[in-house]
Amino acid sequence: MKLLRYLLIFIPISILGEFLHFSSTLLFIFSALAIVPLAGLMGEATEEISFYSGPKIGGFLNATFGNATELIISIFALKAGLFDVVKASIAGSVIGNILLVLGASMFIGGIHHKVQKFNKKVVEVSSSMLLFAVIGLSVPAIFTHTVNKELLNTKYESLSVAVALVMFVIYLLSLYFSFFTHKDIYSVDHEEESRASWSLKSAILVLVIATVIIAIESEFLVSAVEPMTKSIGLSEFFVGIILIPIIGNAAEHSTAVLMALKNKMDVAVEIAIGSSLQIILFVAPVLIFLSLLFKPMSIIFNEFELIALIVSVFIANRVANDGESNWLEGIQLLAVYIIIAISFFEI
Amino acid sequence: MKLLRYLLIFIPISILGEFLHFSSTLLFIFSALAIVPLAGLMGEATEEISFYSGPKIGGFLNATFGNATELIISIFALKAGLFDVVKASIAGSVIGNILLVLGASMFIGGIHHKVQKFNKKVVEVSSSMLLFAVIGLSVPAIFTHTVNKELLNTKYESLSVAVALVMFVIYLLSLYFSFFTHKDIYSVDHEEESRASWSLKSAILVLVIATVIIAIESEFLVSAVEPMTKSIGLSEFFVGIILIPIIGNAAEHSTAVLMALKNKMDVAVEIAIGSSLQIILFVAPVLIFLSLLFKPMSIIFNEFELIALIVSVFIANRVANDGESNWLEGIQLLAVYIIIAISFFEI
Amino acid sequence: MKLLRYLLIFIPISILGEFLHFSSTLLFIFSALAIVPLAGLMGEATEEISFYSGPKIGGFLNATFGNATELIISIFALKAGLFDVVKASIAGSVIGNILLVLGASMFIGGIHHKVQKFNKKVVEVSSSMLLFAVIGLSVPAIFTHTVNKELLNTKYESLSVAVALVMFVIYLLSLYFSFFTHKDIYSVDHEEESRASWSLKSAILVLVIATVIIAIESEFLVSAVEPMTKSIGLSEFFVGIILIPIIGNAAEHSTAVLMALKNKMDVAVEIAIGSSLQIILFVAPVLIFLSLLFKPMSIIFNEFELIALIVSVFIANRVANDGESNWLEGIQLLAVYIIIAISFFEI
Repeated sequence: MKLLRYLLIFIPISILGEFLHFSSTLLFIFSALAIVPLAGLMGEATEEISFYSGPKIGGFLNATFGNATELIISIFALKAGLFDVVKASIAGSVIGNILLVLGASMFIGGIHHKVQKFNKKVVEVSSSMLLFAVIGLSVPAIFTHTVNKELLNTKYESLSVAVALVMFVIYLLSLYFSFFTHKDIYSVDHEEESRASWSLKSAILVLVIATVIIAIESEFLVSAVEPMTKSIGLSEFFVGIILIPIIGNAAEHSTAVLMALKNKMDVAVEIAIGSSLQIILFVAPVLIFLSLLFKPMSIIFNEFELIALIVSVFIANRVANDGESNWLEGIQLLAVYIIIAISFFEI
Repeated sequence: MKLLRYLLIFIPISILGEFLHFSSTLLFIFSALAIVPLAGLMGEATEEISFYSGPKIGGFLNATFGNATELIISIFALKAGLFDVVKASIAGSVIGNILLVLGASMFIGGIHHKVQKFNKKVVEVSSSMLLFAVIGLSVPAIFTHTVNKELLNTKYESLSVAVALVMFVIYLLSLYFSFFTHKDIYSVDHEEESRASWSLKSAILVLVIATVIIAIESEFLVSAVEPMTKSIGLSEFFVGIILIPIIGNAAEHSTAVLMALKNKMDVAVEIAIGSSLQIILFVAPVLIFLSLLFKPMSIIFNEFELIALIVSVFIANRVANDGESNWLEGIQLLAVYIIIAISFFEI
Repeated sequence: MKLLRYLLIFIPISILGEFLHFSSTLLFIFSALAIVPLAGLMGEATEEISFYSGPKIGGFLNATFGNATELIISIFALKAGLFDVVKASIAGSVIGNILLVLGASMFIGGIHHKVQKFNKKVVEVSSSMLLFAVIGLSVPAIFTHTVNKELLNTKYESLSVAVALVMFVIYLLSLYFSFFTHKDIYSVDHEEESRASWSLKSAILVLVIATVIIAIESEFLVSAVEPMTKSIGLSEFFVGIILIPIIGNAAEHSTAVLMALKNKMDVAVEIAIGSSLQIILFVAPVLIFLSLLFKPMSIIFNEFELIALIVSVFIANRVANDGESNWLEGIQLLAVYIIIAISFFEI
């Protein structure tokens, strides 16, 4: 985690690159490398603030800011009209969390610990929510890909907004569920050994500054996407489904793997599944709502994103159902991820 | 349940409406409201007869008459050539039972009881049967939507009849399974507190009269479908997949929710899953066979019905696998139902 | 098992038929009937050799030679350019193992034993591997059927080879997993009561001779496929997905059913699922690699094969998850198989 901080050097490099008109590929790489440690800092600052605000507000902050980086990148992509990139990155975040993060955690953790157990009960609630959320999110897409091919664009939009509303309400209800009516299910204390190490003031300062710089770097990143994909022949789908989620989640990913190494698979699994859940119930609806300010974006995923999403979520449920993991299971998740990545790379 | 009886007033109203040529929308609503309490009476009469006939014949009667209302409505729709409505209502009954009935039961029950447990073993047998049944039912449809687009109509029919036969044999075998070879699995006594309150004679009389009036009201209902959909711009799919199943199952639905309120989730879950199972293994094949008398109906669902069916059944299995429910799980099922309903409404 | 040996008489009959130019249908049937006992002998010989080689090499031999018959038939089909038959037979082997073999085992075993239990833990590892393997195998196919319809043929190939490589690496790692790092999971001794009854020399001799004759009969079988399908109006898909897997697996199938009869469901389930796993992780990649010697075959299944594969694997996972079986569950698996077979027969 701390090692990632050295990457902060890419903040000035990327700004310099922007002014000196570096190639779009270099600019993409530099701003990506700058975002990684900033996302980490943002996460740390949010956690520090949680210690001062008490568990309820803290839990809410963690839940809301957990995917802030992806949200910021996506907003700039939305503004630039890169709808395919935005939707691919929503799908890609879920796929990446489940196949890449969970796969890497299980593989690396499994090399050091023969069998790693985790609390099925805790994981079951979120993996089952994830299943329903993805099914709900998929319905309009399945619907338009099958029955109803001549649906008017205006209808797409109203359908998307309706679904986004339903998702967002479920999100609020799930917060109410976990902070009020059923808070005991979530009583596993993830952070028992940690303590506030920053003052509240400096934590808030770090949060604000990191957010501002992430916004600037996201602007650089997004404006490099189109020229880069053209110059090196990558598809925008590949950028959206593979690259952006890795950039936005790198800090979180390293935490999950670290936890797996410490044989805390509960935390690793909860990071991967909880983060996916937030993407679908919070980030996706917010992006749909925000798109109404620019040009309305539909919630209709293409067929492959859809299948990749559904497959990932079934895998998450299968894994959760099991309650234990080993290195081979990790390798298998990684293998599915690699095959998906190769396929998208080939477009 | 008893409150529904006041709706019997809609029997004379709907008959009056028919003679005075009310608008088709009003006629649809009035006959729908008349069917709801009749279906309830039919169910009660069947249960009363069971007390006199002993558990085996009683179980058989319950299993066979459980979806009699839907069967009667569907037969009239079949006669009127409304194949899309018939097939949509088969899919809609399963979807409605699992998402709407189970969702409402879990939600309303979950508000009063923090966590509701049910016997996994009992539910597992039927939810796993449901999975296989839906897969079997889906094969010809998947087949025609993918490989074999130029299949001749005559072949569709022979394939449909063959699949219907297989389903029906499975239905008979499952009765044999539950009443003879494995009757102990089903030993949970659902009705322990109730007693025969009618004489056998009056129960039979009620059954016969209710059936006759349901048939008349179904005729009204079905003949109102086409003019109504045209006049208010609803699709026949929406009527078939959402409205008709709600009408046919309303009495059953209220029982399930009532049981959930009393914290008897076993019964609520069994009503939802058992009723779905009967629709697929008994009602659907019987409709295919009966259609041979008029104009042969294929068993080929459209792609969206198919996916909605498969998704519902996977959800049923996920829920069953868990063995407990809470209000958030109920909300999630309802949310998926609402999204499906909105999608069909938008056609 | 021993009874199958009488079928060896079809070796001379098929050779005679070949020289006397029998009809292609007769030649197909005769060589098929000759292959059945040869596959059985090959299996026995491999097991005998295992006793001399010790458990590790023995396990490896069993794993590798377990599907040798299918591999040999497929190689001849590959050489003859019958790619549709080869791919259909890969999918058909998995479907047949899970629906036909497991279904028959559960049905026949379940008639004699009310409820048959098996060790969930053992089955879970392989059924979950099977799930990931099929998902990985399906990704390129789903990809080409959805997003990317104009993908060039050369790209298909490179994608297929890449996926085959990933699969094969997973296969090797899974051997390492089961023979080294986690060998205790597989400690259930399947063959506890049997003993070497052949000398090592004669076992090797039998293995070599059986392999050679299977190769000859496979040549007869494959060369009869095309004229036969034309003369009697069967589709090559039906031959590939239904007939060839039955021929190649007949000996194995009878072992599974026999084990179920003896109430050793663990072994029956492990044969069905383990054999499916080998087909996907070993046979399929090897065929892709070998096809590069003739004309490159893609790993792209058609949509129906794909869905049948995925459905079978979900069923396998559902069944494994349960940990017990009864005759009705067996009937249901068989029913799904019959419906798939009827559908393919109707093409």
